[in-house]
Amino acid sequence: MLPLERLRRIVGAEHVLSAPEETFPYECDALTWLRRRPAAVVLPGGTAETAAVVAALAEAGLPFVARGAGTGLSAGALCPAGGVVIETARMKRLLALDPWNRLARVECGIANAEVSRAAEAHGLFFAPDPSSQHVCTIGGNIAENAGGPHTFKYGATARHVLALTVVLPDGRVLHTGSPLADPSGYDLTGLLVGTEGTCAIVTEATLKLTPVPPAVETLLLAFRGVEDACAAVQRVIASGLEPCTMEVMDGATIAAVEASVNAAGYPRDAGAVLILEFDGGGAAVAESAERAERLCRELEVLACERARDRAHRLKLWKGRKGAFGAMGRLAPDLLVQDAVVPRSRLAEVSARVLEIGREQGVRLSNVLHAGDGNLHPNISYDRRDADETRRVLEACACILSACVAAGGTLSGEHGIGLEKRDFMHLVYGVSDVEKMRAVRDVFNGRALLNPDKVLPAREQQTP
Amino acid sequence: MLPLERLRRIVGAEHVLSAPEETFPYECDALTWLRRRPAAVVLPGGTAETAAVVAALAEAGLPFVARGAGTGLSAGALCPAGGVVIETARMKRLLALDPWNRLARVECGIANAEVSRAAEAHGLFFAPDPSSQHVCTIGGNIAENAGGPHTFKYGATARHVLALTVVLPDGRVLHTGSPLADPSGYDLTGLLVGTEGTCAIVTEATLKLTPVPPAVETLLLAFRGVEDACAAVQRVIASGLEPCTMEVMDGATIAAVEASVNAAGYPRDAGAVLILEFDGGGAAVAESAERAERLCRELEVLACERARDRAHRLKLWKGRKGAFGAMGRLAPDLLVQDAVVPRSRLAEVSARVLEIGREQGVRLSNVLHAGDGNLHPNISYDRRDADETRRVLEACACILSACVAAGGTLSGEHGIGLEKRDFMHLVYGVSDVEKMRAVRDVFNGRALLNPDKVLPAREQQTP
Repeated sequence: MLPLERLRRIVGAEHVLSAPEETFPYECDALTWLRRRPAAVVLPGGTAETAAVVAALAEAGLPFVARGAGTGLSAGALCPAGGVVIETARMKRLLALDPWNRLARVECGIANAEVSRAAEAHGLFFAPDPSSQHVCTIGGNIAENAGGPHTFKYGATARHVLALTVVLPDGRVLHTGSPLADPSGYDLTGLLVGTEGTCAIVTEATLKLTPVPPAVETLLLAFRGVEDACAAVQRVIASGLEPCTMEVMDGATIAAVEASVNAAGYPRDAGAVLILEFDGGGAAVAESAERAERLCRELEVLACERARDRAHRLKLWKGRKGAFGAMGRLAPDLLVQDAVVPRSRLAEVSARVLEIGREQGVRLSNVLHAGDGNLHPNISYDRRDADETRRVLEACACILSACVAAGGTLSGEHGIGLEKRDFMHLVYGVSDVEKMRAVRDVFNGRALLNPDKVLPAREQQTP
Repeated sequence: MLPLERLRRIVGAEHVLSAPEETFPYECDALTWLRRRPAAVVLPGGTAETAAVVAALAEAGLPFVARGAGTGLSAGALCPAGGVVIETARMKRLLALDPWNRLARVECGIANAEVSRAAEAHGLFFAPDPSSQHVCTIGGNIAENAGGPHTFKYGATARHVLALTVVLPDGRVLHTGSPLADPSGYDLTGLLVGTEGTCAIVTEATLKLTPVPPAVETLLLAFRGVEDACAAVQRVIASGLEPCTMEVMDGATIAAVEASVNAAGYPRDAGAVLILEFDGGGAAVAESAERAERLCRELEVLACERARDRAHRLKLWKGRKGAFGAMGRLAPDLLVQDAVVPRSRLAEVSARVLEIGREQGVRLSNVLHAGDGNLHPNISYDRRDADETRRVLEACACILSACVAAGGTLSGEHGIGLEKRDFMHLVYGVSDVEKMRAVRDVFNGRALLNPDKVLPAREQQTP
């Protein structure tokens, strides 16, 4: 039985939602074809209230899940059947800023970009930059070990989290790690980052801040196709240059962008666009950009622009930043797929991905964090069309198989969630999964917290 | 019963040592006051032999420990009573080098510096640089999550390990992670790095390589004392500059270095020396060094040298590289202590450390990875003198307490091992330690592998 009265006493009646019209928005995250209506949504105001809520739910034997801004792309915050969503929207305080030690302590519901905004006055920022950074929460970033265009240089979220306050699934509070770089003993912080909310609910975090680089140089290069853009990436990396970003958009993405209100003025005949960015100390950054441009021009470049100033840089980024929005306009639903291959296989696998799109008759475009070998094939579709949805999912299965066959893996930054747990056997044997399950059981033995995510059901493990 | 015959059949008779004169060198690691003679030492030739050896020992119910070059400083590779040392000296092959994807696959017994040597021709190197890098093994680096002078910029070992092959304590082999940056599912690789050989034996690893920076600038600054050197560090960091190294040596270290065969020509009246290094793209590095020099000169600088070329840079580093050797010459034994404090407390805690040395009447000097807030108080002593040894250990206990009281932690890079496990209660509560123990039990439930390390015995947990 849902302990509604007890929950209301803990967080206040106005912070417990249980009417269908109130719980409806929590039916899914940004992966829209998977949906489950929660029995209730609770909004605790801090760690203590979260702990009390969890204790009440654990006593009642009800499953629950933590949820940030709902921008997740693998159904990781989908509510377990008959369960409760613990929404972190009320926990968004910046608790402390320590510029000298380059640290920020925050509540988990704060938006990613808010942290950088607060640190800006001290010349610091929080490096992980998922596309949804203006809304997605630090708690969600930690759950998914989120990355973004600048992950190639700065690393994903795990590298920027030093200590956590978490609520365990029995309602106890645990503090892990240390604001100093290296914790003593086992690194429980590192262990929990990336477990997709299946081991504990993060309520507070100590984050590492990074100095804002004094200079940035941005190049936009247009090529005939993705193969040339990937060859350019190969040249730049082989030369030892260290860009902070290497983003590739394919022709279908360019067409969608140019047809949208955010048209970026990319060459009409371009089959791929590459954004190269360098940051760091002044003169060297300009040097690097010039060297990279020379290297790329040894290939057939249709156009090359170098940002003159901040406004120009934002213009060059406009198409990339608006890409998901532009594709979202093509159809009611957008599935942003996420997989990784070795950089050396990127061009070949990207071509295969387009082919899969054609085979399944789905509208597919591709955006790549090329430096990380991370593909984002995007499929625009209408989930109310059962046959189209079936073909979309079939295309996803083919794409994941193709990536794994090329030596890749299932997810670069969006997580496994519910979406991909049944693909885990493509990359892991039974004993790997059993070790992961045993680790989860250390924290979440009753599996009330976010069950049925990440790890395949036992009966599905045998390949 | 020691299954000597079975072990000999697995690895060859010449690779099983059991006579006292053969096992004597394995009595301790570089923390010399803790000693235990192993019943036998076995040298397997690869993963399969390691697995077979472990299976034989597990069946016999004997405890065992893996050991690399024995350069550890926390008795982490000390043999469990009546147990067997599994020495990795025969597993030192470079298995594959993939410059385009910037990866190296190695056996765990390869020396740290060997990896960089092999990658050099491709303009790449392995970034973690412990002082013992010419002998210490990658397996040991992974166990301890080792760091070094360049950790401030490049991060410790965990950031540079992508995938592992490990032998579990029951003899099964597990492959974790992926040569791609982000593994899918739980990050078992990240979990195992830094567990000090208490969860599994690493036999092979896929390492991330880093481009050799095109330019390096090295400054050596002499100050009146550690307080001024730490103030210089503070100024440089507050300015947003990003040195790759910030090493401080105190007056006692300078005196020891100058009295040794490796005399570096440091000013006689200096109470502290700071080595600042910048690496990256050409012009910016020079710019940074000039800016840093100007900032430091606002304090009272006794001397400032900037390396003109590689030979000059090696000369500036000579004193730092020879520091432990120089102190080793002062007495038969050297204890290299390791603790971390917030950078903002470094000067104050360093002064307190010297005071503790005086109070206990021990010969103490201090070397700091100042950027990381990492102190290495070094105590020269004679372990055959029971009273002196007692005072050395008392000084260590006081130092650790002082660091923890200042918001610090027990170890920056040398690990907890046997040396510090009974100090774990200074930083962790019972429930933290119980979670760590439960994680260990997932892998090492019988605790035959490297028992009595890292985690305090249950009865010692209650503060």
